[in-house]
Amino acid sequence: MRIVVDAMGGDYAPANVIAGVVDAVKELSVNITLVGQEDLVKAHLKKYSFPKEQINIVHAPEVVGMDDNPIDVIRRKRDCSMVVGVNLLKESGYDAFISAGNTGALVASATFYLRMIEGIDRPGIGLVIPQINGYACLIDVGANADPKPEHIYQYGHMARVYMQSVMGVKEPTVGLVNIGEEEGKGSGFDKQTYQLLQEKMPGFIGNIEPNKIFTGKADCIVCSGFVGNVIIKLTEGFMESAGAVLKREIKKNPVAMLGALMMMGTLKGIKKNVDYSEYGGAPLLGVNGIVMKSHGRSSPKAIKNAIRAAMREVEHKIIEKMQAAIIS
Amino acid sequence: MRIVVDAMGGDYAPANVIAGVVDAVKELSVNITLVGQEDLVKAHLKKYSFPKEQINIVHAPEVVGMDDNPIDVIRRKRDCSMVVGVNLLKESGYDAFISAGNTGALVASATFYLRMIEGIDRPGIGLVIPQINGYACLIDVGANADPKPEHIYQYGHMARVYMQSVMGVKEPTVGLVNIGEEEGKGSGFDKQTYQLLQEKMPGFIGNIEPNKIFTGKADCIVCSGFVGNVIIKLTEGFMESAGAVLKREIKKNPVAMLGALMMMGTLKGIKKNVDYSEYGGAPLLGVNGIVMKSHGRSSPKAIKNAIRAAMREVEHKIIEKMQAAIIS
Repeated sequence: MRIVVDAMGGDYAPANVIAGVVDAVKELSVNITLVGQEDLVKAHLKKYSFPKEQINIVHAPEVVGMDDNPIDVIRRKRDCSMVVGVNLLKESGYDAFISAGNTGALVASATFYLRMIEGIDRPGIGLVIPQINGYACLIDVGANADPKPEHIYQYGHMARVYMQSVMGVKEPTVGLVNIGEEEGKGSGFDKQTYQLLQEKMPGFIGNIEPNKIFTGKADCIVCSGFVGNVIIKLTEGFMESAGAVLKREIKKNPVAMLGALMMMGTLKGIKKNVDYSEYGGAPLLGVNGIVMKSHGRSSPKAIKNAIRAAMREVEHKIIEKMQAAIIS
Repeated sequence: MRIVVDAMGGDYAPANVIAGVVDAVKELSVNITLVGQEDLVKAHLKKYSFPKEQINIVHAPEVVGMDDNPIDVIRRKRDCSMVVGVNLLKESGYDAFISAGNTGALVASATFYLRMIEGIDRPGIGLVIPQINGYACLIDVGANADPKPEHIYQYGHMARVYMQSVMGVKEPTVGLVNIGEEEGKGSGFDKQTYQLLQEKMPGFIGNIEPNKIFTGKADCIVCSGFVGNVIIKLTEGFMESAGAVLKREIKKNPVAMLGALMMMGTLKGIKKNVDYSEYGGAPLLGVNGIVMKSHGRSSPKAIKNAIRAAMREVEHKIIEKMQAAIIS
């Protein structure tokens, strides 16, 4: 299996990306092509020992900034690691592309160069999120802030294929994020989307209130990219501030501090359950190729796990299955 | 001070409402008029001893269900406790009205009978949320799922008056919930709203990403009722599931259980800091009268604290200040 990784994408690139790639080739049967500024990538790779035949470099002189306008990237930064990486996937027989870089630019480059799967109008980022028992796919978490109801319907289809083929759920259910359980709740957009899903979506079980997103009510949870992004950023904020508040409060009280030490194993187990880096990457679904978006602040572990997640998609032939499912 | 309380509103009405009202009259200098089915209210009141002159009852035979359509309530349920309560506030010299009932019906009744403050087109529910240091007003959390940019601008104005007069913040800052910090992020609606706030909103400091909502970046945080409702429901879901997961995991490990016992005081302190019932109610801002929405699952303590919050608004003459600030 051959996977292209954007060495320059993310807040801690290339250091974290390269550290994660090195860990990946040691653990997994995969060959990685790192795309980025060759000298810089080489300098970082020198720090590690690893099976040399599993990592090679393709030079890309330019870098996409986190604030770069997506359209400008396609028009004017054709030599950046992201665009070069997407084109390697398209033209050179690679299996997947992973980037922790600018989300908008990744969505735009992948859409422009790979084109869409027939029957899909806009790509969506599907994040696999933990449930009380198992996992669900939340889509879209940030590719498309202004979707039409038909886009949400297409997201539901893609999430079902993903949950069926990659996660092994036989008949995935689909729920719509809404601010009430009953039909007729939400904005005009939400009401229209509900109608469309009600009419056409296999496995549709109705609205999911935001407090039920992590409880396992539905296997596929659909929403606009704006709402999905609010959900994941708020969730991250909670995980971070819960930890910070707990630490601050515990320090005020020595008995509590001892208590916290005794609970450490349990707390770490819980954190692992909800930690994005355990899953690593979110698939950009809808484009004609396996593209994985990693978190901008990805740790080496998150990069390694994104590679693992991409490999699962390749093994399960997700693109072929999506092409077959959506057209039919 | 004379406050009307909807005895029949909320999931645990009238029991929790009446228990909260009884606690309130014992602790606070306030007279409460309970609106609801007289026999039922009397039967509940009999369980408690309290200063009789501080609570009286106004009979309202009908009850608004949580699923009742708001327009139907105004058209066909004019004898319900909510509509009778709103009209008491309007016509009989009361200072405030509190209900834990159907949000849509409360917004519709208050808007229809009290009318809007001049210069405000749509009411918004402003929730006072804890920050690392202090509080912020998040508006709208569910009155208006489909706002126009001008509504958001008006919410910003009202939140500023609230934070100035009730919370004592001299020059409140205003931030817009958005999925990126930079200008140009979000949907078309968010971009338009950003422009409008940038041009006209005093104290505007730009976008607030969802993970920064509880950090104290802005005193007033504006968003659509859909997004605001997603934020508060997700937050509630976290508080609940964090507790449940912690309990479940701790039970697996006796050392952790002992640790948890030792941390109990600290954990309770944190919970108090984020517990909605500590603040109790969310003001429905924009209507010509002090109306407070309490959580549907309000505990007696939440009801008591909603009464306290309404009293603060009365003391600070929030309506007069809003009328003066918005027209000028």
